[in-house]
Amino acid sequence: MLEPSPILIPQDYLGECLSQEEFAPTDSFVQRHIGADSHEIQLMLKAIGCESIEEMIARTVPAAIRIKQPLQLGKARGEYELLQELKAIASQNQVWRSYIGAGYYNCITPPVIQRNILESPGWYTQYTPYQAEIAQGRLEALLNFQTMIIDLTGLEIANASLLDEGTAAAEAMTMAAGLAKNKGNKFFVSSNCHPQTIAVVKTRAIPLGIEVVIAKHDAFEFDQNYFGALLQYPASDGAIYDYSEVIAAIHAQGGLAIVAADLLALTLIKAPGEMGTDIAIGSAQRFGVPYGYGGPHAAYMATKEAYKRQMPGRMIGVSKDVHGQPALRLALQTREQHIRRDKATSNICTAQVLLAIMASMYAVYHGASGLKAIAQRVHRLTATLAQAIENAGHIISHTAFFDTIHIQPQGIDISTIKARAATKQINLRYLDNQAIAISLDETVSKQDLQDLIEIFTANSQQLTANSQQQSPIPNSLTRTSPYLTHPVFNSFHSESELLRYIHRLQSKDLSLTTSMIPLGSCTMKLNATSEMLPVTWAEFGNIHPFAPLSQTQGYQVLFKQLEDWLAEITGFAGVSLQPNAGSQGEYAGLLTIRAYHQHRGETNRHICLIPTSAHGTNPASAVMAGMKVITINCDREGNIDITDLKEKAAKYQHELAALMVTYPSTHGVFEEGIKEICDIIHYYGGQVYMDGANMNAQVGICRPGDFGADVCHLNLHKTFCIPHGGGGPGMGPICVAPQLVPFLPNHPFNDDTSDQTDDFANTVSAAPWGSASILTISWVYIALMGAKGLKLATEVAILNANYMAHRLAPHYPILYTGRNGLVAHECIIDLHDCKAIAGVEVDDVAKRLMDYGFHAPTMSWPVAGTMMIEPTESESKAELDRFCEAMIAIKHEVKAIASGEMDQLDNPLKNAPHTAAALLADDWNHPYTRQQAAYPAPWLREHKFWTSVGRIDNAYGDRHFVCSCLPLEAYKD
Amino acid sequence: MLEPSPILIPQDYLGECLSQEEFAPTDSFVQRHIGADSHEIQLMLKAIGCESIEEMIARTVPAAIRIKQPLQLGKARGEYELLQELKAIASQNQVWRSYIGAGYYNCITPPVIQRNILESPGWYTQYTPYQAEIAQGRLEALLNFQTMIIDLTGLEIANASLLDEGTAAAEAMTMAAGLAKNKGNKFFVSSNCHPQTIAVVKTRAIPLGIEVVIAKHDAFEFDQNYFGALLQYPASDGAIYDYSEVIAAIHAQGGLAIVAADLLALTLIKAPGEMGTDIAIGSAQRFGVPYGYGGPHAAYMATKEAYKRQMPGRMIGVSKDVHGQPALRLALQTREQHIRRDKATSNICTAQVLLAIMASMYAVYHGASGLKAIAQRVHRLTATLAQAIENAGHIISHTAFFDTIHIQPQGIDISTIKARAATKQINLRYLDNQAIAISLDETVSKQDLQDLIEIFTANSQQLTANSQQQSPIPNSLTRTSPYLTHPVFNSFHSESELLRYIHRLQSKDLSLTTSMIPLGSCTMKLNATSEMLPVTWAEFGNIHPFAPLSQTQGYQVLFKQLEDWLAEITGFAGVSLQPNAGSQGEYAGLLTIRAYHQHRGETNRHICLIPTSAHGTNPASAVMAGMKVITINCDREGNIDITDLKEKAAKYQHELAALMVTYPSTHGVFEEGIKEICDIIHYYGGQVYMDGANMNAQVGICRPGDFGADVCHLNLHKTFCIPHGGGGPGMGPICVAPQLVPFLPNHPFNDDTSDQTDDFANTVSAAPWGSASILTISWVYIALMGAKGLKLATEVAILNANYMAHRLAPHYPILYTGRNGLVAHECIIDLHDCKAIAGVEVDDVAKRLMDYGFHAPTMSWPVAGTMMIEPTESESKAELDRFCEAMIAIKHEVKAIASGEMDQLDNPLKNAPHTAAALLADDWNHPYTRQQAAYPAPWLREHKFWTSVGRIDNAYGDRHFVCSCLPLEAYKD
Repeated sequence: MLEPSPILIPQDYLGECLSQEEFAPTDSFVQRHIGADSHEIQLMLKAIGCESIEEMIARTVPAAIRIKQPLQLGKARGEYELLQELKAIASQNQVWRSYIGAGYYNCITPPVIQRNILESPGWYTQYTPYQAEIAQGRLEALLNFQTMIIDLTGLEIANASLLDEGTAAAEAMTMAAGLAKNKGNKFFVSSNCHPQTIAVVKTRAIPLGIEVVIAKHDAFEFDQNYFGALLQYPASDGAIYDYSEVIAAIHAQGGLAIVAADLLALTLIKAPGEMGTDIAIGSAQRFGVPYGYGGPHAAYMATKEAYKRQMPGRMIGVSKDVHGQPALRLALQTREQHIRRDKATSNICTAQVLLAIMASMYAVYHGASGLKAIAQRVHRLTATLAQAIENAGHIISHTAFFDTIHIQPQGIDISTIKARAATKQINLRYLDNQAIAISLDETVSKQDLQDLIEIFTANSQQLTANSQQQSPIPNSLTRTSPYLTHPVFNSFHSESELLRYIHRLQSKDLSLTTSMIPLGSCTMKLNATSEMLPVTWAEFGNIHPFAPLSQTQGYQVLFKQLEDWLAEITGFAGVSLQPNAGSQGEYAGLLTIRAYHQHRGETNRHICLIPTSAHGTNPASAVMAGMKVITINCDREGNIDITDLKEKAAKYQHELAALMVTYPSTHGVFEEGIKEICDIIHYYGGQVYMDGANMNAQVGICRPGDFGADVCHLNLHKTFCIPHGGGGPGMGPICVAPQLVPFLPNHPFNDDTSDQTDDFANTVSAAPWGSASILTISWVYIALMGAKGLKLATEVAILNANYMAHRLAPHYPILYTGRNGLVAHECIIDLHDCKAIAGVEVDDVAKRLMDYGFHAPTMSWPVAGTMMIEPTESESKAELDRFCEAMIAIKHEVKAIASGEMDQLDNPLKNAPHTAAALLADDWNHPYTRQQAAYPAPWLREHKFWTSVGRIDNAYGDRHFVCSCLPLEAYKD
Repeated sequence: MLEPSPILIPQDYLGECLSQEEFAPTDSFVQRHIGADSHEIQLMLKAIGCESIEEMIARTVPAAIRIKQPLQLGKARGEYELLQELKAIASQNQVWRSYIGAGYYNCITPPVIQRNILESPGWYTQYTPYQAEIAQGRLEALLNFQTMIIDLTGLEIANASLLDEGTAAAEAMTMAAGLAKNKGNKFFVSSNCHPQTIAVVKTRAIPLGIEVVIAKHDAFEFDQNYFGALLQYPASDGAIYDYSEVIAAIHAQGGLAIVAADLLALTLIKAPGEMGTDIAIGSAQRFGVPYGYGGPHAAYMATKEAYKRQMPGRMIGVSKDVHGQPALRLALQTREQHIRRDKATSNICTAQVLLAIMASMYAVYHGASGLKAIAQRVHRLTATLAQAIENAGHIISHTAFFDTIHIQPQGIDISTIKARAATKQINLRYLDNQAIAISLDETVSKQDLQDLIEIFTANSQQLTANSQQQSPIPNSLTRTSPYLTHPVFNSFHSESELLRYIHRLQSKDLSLTTSMIPLGSCTMKLNATSEMLPVTWAEFGNIHPFAPLSQTQGYQVLFKQLEDWLAEITGFAGVSLQPNAGSQGEYAGLLTIRAYHQHRGETNRHICLIPTSAHGTNPASAVMAGMKVITINCDREGNIDITDLKEKAAKYQHELAALMVTYPSTHGVFEEGIKEICDIIHYYGGQVYMDGANMNAQVGICRPGDFGADVCHLNLHKTFCIPHGGGGPGMGPICVAPQLVPFLPNHPFNDDTSDQTDDFANTVSAAPWGSASILTISWVYIALMGAKGLKLATEVAILNANYMAHRLAPHYPILYTGRNGLVAHECIIDLHDCKAIAGVEVDDVAKRLMDYGFHAPTMSWPVAGTMMIEPTESESKAELDRFCEAMIAIKHEVKAIASGEMDQLDNPLKNAPHTAAALLADDWNHPYTRQQAAYPAPWLREHKFWTSVGRIDNAYGDRHFVCSCLPLEAYKD
């Protein structure tokens, strides 16, 4: 007999997820994504005392909120067929040549960087570098990024990337508001800024009570009410201005000057810092990062050292380790890890680390002379184009420009130009019915230039450059100061050298290619290759964010499906894919609530209730949305104190705007009262914002939209497989209930690439669909898993957390369990005992885990003195066991200290992590052996991850603040 | 003024290579490929006492042979534009669905394997694992491969891959010829073998005097003249036969039975070993390796342990290291490294390591049950298809089959079938005018199946599988024995686990991502990403090797250009891209010489003169081509002894077939007499075969075709950037003078995919263009470099070698320099002194280099007691200096031993390499420090590559021969 499709065995949980169709493919993904097989699932269920997954869920998730019907998503799919299907969708996108500019420029990703960073799991699966000792590689790359920004902008300090140019401008605005001496409430924005930047700034300004004044910069009269001014350099239409006088004028009134500057231009034109600029912001996209129809790309911010404590985002700083060697880590970290809640002026958390690293490597590869050569060629091409178009009788509006020209066509309709361009599959920027802008970039070939000229002359001509031509960069604006002089920008210009530099840095960093990263609340699950492959397909990567909709039909299909799926998963009515990070999602979600209340005339609703257990970004986002934060108490179990909630909701019933709540709670428990909580808020006229950080415990089991939330954001980089990239990119779409749909984010570029000048007051990202290209990742994940696979993933995530809690409980008390003694998808273990009996701090355990080859779980959050462990569904039972064994072995070490068997101060925990160099010192003066230090578990002899530095002195680095590459001599001290 | 294109500085060697066109792109490749910049080139020239590159070349290469005109190749190009151009060429290929089978089947490369092995420089830039201590990762993967082959074939031992199924069959034939008791000269080949296999076997047989008899296997009467028989299982037309009786019959006559078996089928059908088979061969292509229009793929060979010393190719064996831990290395290595010259029966050197590793990982990922599920589904689909076609009134020729059916259409012309298939872009195998074969594979979907059925029924129908249907695998042939039971095939089934396994193995291996690999004669230059990217484009990867020419126009364009370029570079008239490795090129080249003499009636010309300094493959290839080897002496400088040559050429003037000569010589010198040498051979009626191993020193400087060679092969994996892949793939095309063009290799599949049955006696590879997909690599390299770039690469390769010779000369004598004291592109350093003064062997130095983070140069070849260093042009001056400093530091260590400062036996050289585990032993009993052992150079503190095992005991492993995975318990001893 022919063997039929595999027969289901009892409790074959994985088998049940797969298609039972006779001809279903054999490369189904569910079993690749979920770490345990059905047998291991049964073993773990048995260990935690459950007969079945159903029983476990019944004991974990309140019955009242569990969904009864399966999600209406597809079946689990095979990877091969799904990628073929996506390729067909992708082919509906048309990759035209785009000279639209406006902050986005085509560029060449050096293939060595594409393959070894963007496409390398050794880089893209890294976590945020909080554990600096196992992150020295990416920290060095980010220090290079900061150095590059400092050099090019001519300012003193820079951060390690922001989300996009638009939000960077908004961040700069709020920073200036806090720093300006005049304490005015007006903010000047040059009308020649990029439209999307203006839209994002305006959106940000309104809830904060800032009045944005948009006007031409020349001859503008500032007064004491202007706390700042934003200028674009080169301007959006390509003109280059010397802003020295404007900057002096705003300074004279006690305000700050912000310049949005193009990095490539800065290799040829005067640095903003040399004009007196206080803050420079901009995008690093054109340094080797593909368009991606909007992202992800890294934005930057540079400013004066005096403002370092007001700088949003993360900064990498140089410090030293316990051995006195230079070592890098996040500087001034209290700014970040303990986000200043309702005192915050920014909610920035995720950055764009992977993309910042790419941009920095682009500079490392090209060096100053390479970058200059690229800029000079682009400039030469632009000047040639301008000359040819002028020769054809059209008007070039500006005489000073770098790569962008503003054209007033003469004797010809814009529509004719547009038609000619379309024939050649070329996109230009049509500014209104009278003008066109064209931005050139490093990919432009001679043929491209000829094609562009033909659009304006209607006939072909032989191109020759006129080397006698005057450069359109005026002498007064020509850059004279040096940049990128550090050896790192002058050593790796051959491909072999760059390849080795990239791999050397990579080898210093622990990523998911080494071991599990059990970060509570951060969900470091598998980032599967099938999910990652499409990101770098040309059909997704090479499309300008403002390309007409007619060219992006493939993307539109993908967005629509993804929105539908996310709506189905969350139980909501509408979705916006615009927010570029979870924090941006929070902010965007609260803006919809704000707009909803305002639309109903309830303008007084400005109170946001937030439990004490909330993520620090929650109150920060509330403040940004113009709300006032009132804190709600939690009980000893970490649950919201419903009495307190009721009282405060009643007290503020006329002002109540929203409650922000995380579910399952940040304590890792499905609160029983969630429906009641939502009802209370609704009763008093508020809306419920659900923080989606813990959606990994809900998908397929319960839906926020069902149990009473009105809006939630989703961290696609947590639950939906976008990799963390070492601290970004992320994506934070929001899903909303029907009443909030009309207030979802919008964007000033409409579908014909004409700029709109209408008022847009709800734009949260520079690009319409945020970091569009990585949405493919979540699309592939959901499609491959299907409804059953996604549900099983959630169940196994909960199972894995409970299994670990079960194994660790005899050694570390488990904080917070549900009514039936089970946790949700993460568990908090209490380490106070380690301190009490042996003086061992959480930090000591975290560093000792490095010696075992592991990244520490989330430390001391949401409760001090604890670790929060989230294994995710992707880890195998073997890996869970290995981690548990490491934790248990560490507890034995703690006990050995307590018993006096080990020294209280000089022990493997206090001295962790141990570098090979330290272990090989000729004198070993510790009361434990080298072997105990290096090989405390058997698997380490098979595969040992060596930390490259010893424990880092954070305080030293903050006292001696340095955020750019040190000269080499400094390392010799 | 607009800055013009960069102005040339004097001796700006790199700048001079680039296009000086006004609009030339800025991403030119020459400066990425060549490690030194113009300034460093000048520094190195100065160091070696040359004013200019021209002077250096004048002092290195005999004036008489230097070309006067630049090569007629293009200009240097930008990477971005060139990849666009190649994409346009690629788009001329049409990717049809192919069910042609005949040894090649579509398959699904698991994305995690594609991205992390095939596309990972950490794997593809590895060298052949001669230095086993820094190659444990790939050795483990290859041991897995061998275990998989042993399990599936049911035989006792297997090797670590051969070039393709056709050559594996030919190797098996010659092996059987040596082993058979009867010493007959007839070889039976089933007529139901794949046609290309038959062609390769016949080609191989003729020069060896073997008579190949092709017939049906059933009822064939063997006699004592038959030393062996080759059977296909399943047969080429899909039939499955129980070969037990045939095998018994050939055994009864004293011959050996060889079975070419399909690995996927073996998961369901009886193992060849269980039928008494002596040797099993076949392809591992369908285990996750793309078609690639012919390759590269790994072939396999398995046999009985008794035949281990006759096994061609490499075998990985288990041994132990100095600490008693299990450790892997090439087993019975004397078979290989010192190829048995004219006693050889095989010239196999390069294998298909990268592809064998992919196939092994495919098995690791799927495990036994996963592979079986794939096979069952393919089988189910095939049975369903057969039933439907039979129902439509056609004849299915065989009742027993696995994945291939042989159809005799009834009432319809083949041409009609063909037309219908073409409409659907489907390729079938058209066997003649009466029959069609269809082979299914794991990629086939339900829709594919329906489309196939429609071709035969002309209407669509709803497909349903008949689960009551009898399996077309007879019970007697059903597999019952287990396979892949080892833990390695049962532990890494989730993507996270496989990803980590792959990375864990990779971290044990030193590749070009770590440091230079200065292998004399092996040319480990940069394998640039732009060269590698197209290999995995679908347009190149997903095309069946026997797809009609009409579908492969893109490939044809590429082949033609590449052939033209290689002909121009070598100065020859014709090129064949068929040979799959350098050794195959030698063999193919000698076959053209043989055919040439035979065609002229000079059948007695069978003497091949070979200098003593030749590569070991040379005499082996000569023997395979039916020639007798006569050795020519070399003088003390390593040059051919022209007197001896003259004498022997004269002596054998009636029998002289060829001279084989390497140029520059294997001693790293441009022999002055090369023209005279060629003239002598021609005078006596012979042809000159030039071994192209050292073409890296000739490109753009001189051309073998100009100075008198008649044929040469090119190692595209040496000179033309195909990566070594840890020991394969390679490519060895041959270039020939006009008189040899008619005798270039041919192939039995013509352009309409009909099999041809004509006699082909000059087929050296299973696929018409060998490993076609990787020809893209060399195409990109040549196109990017252009004529000037290629020439400069050669010059800098020579400069780098001379610079290193200059730096090392004060510490190690340089053997063999040219008349002016310079070497060519590699230099030989003499280590006899180390032995003499300190008892330090070459091996000790090689192992100590690992402690410094380097791979040793070629050891004791071509001269015992030496190292041959080839830096290539891709290494930066910094890297050359670093390597020289390591060698100099080692010499200081040698001197310390000599002076008694270090112990003669217990010193860092004798104990190298030092593993971290050994260094961290609690007791350190050596008279030198741990620091001296681990960090003998300053850069090691910045980046240390740790070897995973200590020095390996080769002899132990050969005495206790094991070539498959040990049970885990064994590792615990």
